[in-house]
Amino acid sequence: MGKSIFYHAGCSVCVSAEQDIVNLIGSENVEIVNIGEDRSRINEAENAGVVSVPALVTPNGNALHINFGASMADVKG
Amino acid sequence: MGKSIFYHAGCSVCVSAEQDIVNLIGSENVEIVNIGEDRSRINEAENAGVVSVPALVTPNGNALHINFGASMADVKG
Repeated sequence: MGKSIFYHAGCSVCVSAEQDIVNLIGSENVEIVNIGEDRSRINEAENAGVVSVPALVTPNGNALHINFGASMADVKG
Repeated sequence: MGKSIFYHAGCSVCVSAEQDIVNLIGSENVEIVNIGEDRSRINEAENAGVVSVPALVTPNGNALHINFGASMADVKG
């Protein structure tokens, strides 16, 4: 199985969801990207269909939006 | 690790998310509950903090709402 990518923006909802996802699928199976800090990857996230964070993009390219931390518009500021 | 519970109501958003979750965490690690059909478990889901489906309740009791299929009010009808 390929790696999933978990996009977040450092908010408390994101951090809580991140811990749950890492526990569930294993830290070796997911790359964690803070698009609040690493803004160069915002574009990549949007292209993957991410409209809010936290979100998990699965190896087959589906964007799963988990709970609701912040919209991409808020992240971009 | 205990088992997670994935609550859904049979909608297309739910089915798509279910397949992703099963692929990610393994079918042996998650119980799938259709609360549209098995209405006796709606109460249990709400007590776990589920406010919309699809949702995944993790072994440590956190409710992760994934994308958005239907509110619990809609499921209860």
